[in-house]
Amino acid sequence: MGIIVQKFGGTSVATAEKIHKAAQRVIAAKLAGHQVVVVVSAMGHTTDELLKLARQVAPNPPKRELDQLLATGEQVTIALIAMAIAAQGHQAISFTGGQIGLVTDAVHSKARIQQIDHDRITRELDAGRIVIVAGFQGVTEDGAVTTLGRGGSNATLVALGAVLQADVCENFTDVDGVFTADPRVVPDARKIDRISYDEMLELSSVGAGVLQTRAVEFAKKYNVPIHVRNAGNDHPGTWIVAETKAMEHILVSGCALKKDLTRVTLKGIPDRPGVVARIFAAIAASNIVVDDIIQNVLDDRTANISFTVEHGDLADLQPVVEKLLAEMGGSARFDRDLAKVSIVGVGMKQSTGVASTMFKALADEQVNIDNISTSEIRISCLVARNDADKALRAVHAAFKLGEPAKV
Amino acid sequence: MGIIVQKFGGTSVATAEKIHKAAQRVIAAKLAGHQVVVVVSAMGHTTDELLKLARQVAPNPPKRELDQLLATGEQVTIALIAMAIAAQGHQAISFTGGQIGLVTDAVHSKARIQQIDHDRITRELDAGRIVIVAGFQGVTEDGAVTTLGRGGSNATLVALGAVLQADVCENFTDVDGVFTADPRVVPDARKIDRISYDEMLELSSVGAGVLQTRAVEFAKKYNVPIHVRNAGNDHPGTWIVAETKAMEHILVSGCALKKDLTRVTLKGIPDRPGVVARIFAAIAASNIVVDDIIQNVLDDRTANISFTVEHGDLADLQPVVEKLLAEMGGSARFDRDLAKVSIVGVGMKQSTGVASTMFKALADEQVNIDNISTSEIRISCLVARNDADKALRAVHAAFKLGEPAKV
Repeated sequence: MGIIVQKFGGTSVATAEKIHKAAQRVIAAKLAGHQVVVVVSAMGHTTDELLKLARQVAPNPPKRELDQLLATGEQVTIALIAMAIAAQGHQAISFTGGQIGLVTDAVHSKARIQQIDHDRITRELDAGRIVIVAGFQGVTEDGAVTTLGRGGSNATLVALGAVLQADVCENFTDVDGVFTADPRVVPDARKIDRISYDEMLELSSVGAGVLQTRAVEFAKKYNVPIHVRNAGNDHPGTWIVAETKAMEHILVSGCALKKDLTRVTLKGIPDRPGVVARIFAAIAASNIVVDDIIQNVLDDRTANISFTVEHGDLADLQPVVEKLLAEMGGSARFDRDLAKVSIVGVGMKQSTGVASTMFKALADEQVNIDNISTSEIRISCLVARNDADKALRAVHAAFKLGEPAKV
Repeated sequence: MGIIVQKFGGTSVATAEKIHKAAQRVIAAKLAGHQVVVVVSAMGHTTDELLKLARQVAPNPPKRELDQLLATGEQVTIALIAMAIAAQGHQAISFTGGQIGLVTDAVHSKARIQQIDHDRITRELDAGRIVIVAGFQGVTEDGAVTTLGRGGSNATLVALGAVLQADVCENFTDVDGVFTADPRVVPDARKIDRISYDEMLELSSVGAGVLQTRAVEFAKKYNVPIHVRNAGNDHPGTWIVAETKAMEHILVSGCALKKDLTRVTLKGIPDRPGVVARIFAAIAASNIVVDDIIQNVLDDRTANISFTVEHGDLADLQPVVEKLLAEMGGSARFDRDLAKVSIVGVGMKQSTGVASTMFKALADEQVNIDNISTSEIRISCLVARNDADKALRAVHAAFKLGEPAKV
């Protein structure tokens, strides 16, 4: 008789029919004897449509008002899910972020959760009701509506799981779980049964799009298990849990690809303390996320510095780079059409030879490595965009990831 | 430097362009030196679309959840209006009903306003901001979202006008004001410059669709002047105000038509105390609004009772009538295709001959009167639906309503 928190993403509640399917799944969990809390996103493309509407009215709308607008998307879904559950003969009650006292800081459009009034939720659960909560939103101390940014509904899911001390957070999506690689690229990719928080964090950061880094960090901090499942079937999905001894026997848990990267090289810039900090402060101020950074000292006074960014950020980056070069000299070079293939596994902490296996697999396929970056449990190689899929398949095969895990 | 509360109905905010026009009008009032509070409805047909969505999910959704759903319509508009004002260089802040502490009773779908936290609004006005409030909605003491029923945005308008002691409530709509008759039926109908609360109440109740009875009652109670204006132009509209001596010189202020009425006659029912109460209690329990009631005693023990209802309510009424007749005997007769023509004016309180002028006008046009009902300031005649437009024109002409008022 534990608490389950379930989350349904936008595609899983996109139509009246899908809303009824989600409701059936919620009711099934309730009938199995659990107390059930449900977090939902806005239906289908609702958020995009609201953004479009906002842009028709104002090119650069105030963020407070944009949050006021966007939060309606999830409010529609919670009401409809509660109606669908009621229509199937069970009791449900819906809450906006504000109605359950989900208080955030005042950073509109990417607010952070500060507290949740779980008493209200517990009272409703104890009264036998299914509780439906709007994902992606909260309120400031002052009562202004905030939104939690990209993947915000997953943040709501995990935060509720933490404050309610839930047995599990079930994240229903349109895939069967987390895979050893993207199945669209690697046909024999296998669903991972269990993966540690740290591995999931690394995989998310290098391109596996199932869960946002922030939600996983939160789940790790409060030790809430996440079960990533397919809303369209009853297959067991992927459990994201704390690291266990058994996991260390698996050298590599999964691999991932980040496509459409550009490497920017600033050449002949002054090799003085503070210059690098200034460059990346200027880039960060423009809200551009920088991937790997490589610095080469050329002589006593000048250096080259390279970093990778996603193609989508190039238009915003170009004026920043031009301004920097105007201030401190040097020139810039842009290498487009790059990709990054990564392997992740807690087992590599205690094993040797993982990196060389990866490099050999790439070399055997004539894939040139442009740059290497690593963490304790990850190795990433920058390769040509055209070699990306081939590289992922080669690495996946080299570590036999298509074969059943032996945990 | 007084406070103005402006309301824009759904048609006046139906598109991004109309939202900008409304914003311009709001800003103009601000620049003229007023503190401005704006109440808005949901855009265009949004409420109907949300209702349709709800019905796709559940045939008979819980009212709490329906209110949670419908309230999103106004929340979208407040954000967009605030954005449009900001885009035009002025400061605005939007509030849902809950955010300004607009507390109602817990009667979902037709809640009544109990209090408003006007301190919050006053603080924002004093800081120089234009305050945008979602019409039609509030929250219960417990924080559940409620809606105020049909015409609820006008209730919000007038309630805000009352608590803020506004100089005027401007109700922007798609017509120039309140007319002496429906201009689509009576080509020489004239816009009324000033009309008393009581006259407006009577006109609303007999078919003049500009303002709901509830909003006018509230305005009368707190003596808030309402100015009904066209959002599409700058013409002065109709002022709805407390009765003045001067108004008594006008015998008839306006006339109105209620079409599509059915007269229901229950024949041979027991003439005993309590029977009539039982009949109308059963009908009221089905949420059917009954118009005029006529009772004729036939003999010592049986009576006929007639009443009129709108065509739209017939389907709901029929089973109620059948059940009543099964219980107490008698039969029912339905006369469809009736209409009611009414004249309203505070002057008729102190004048004679108003009724006979009306009856003569109808007789001259060969219009048969099926039933007559009156109040202190209203006379209504039931006529055949086919005679309705002719009857309205005849009455309008008889009282010379097309000529300028002589106040």
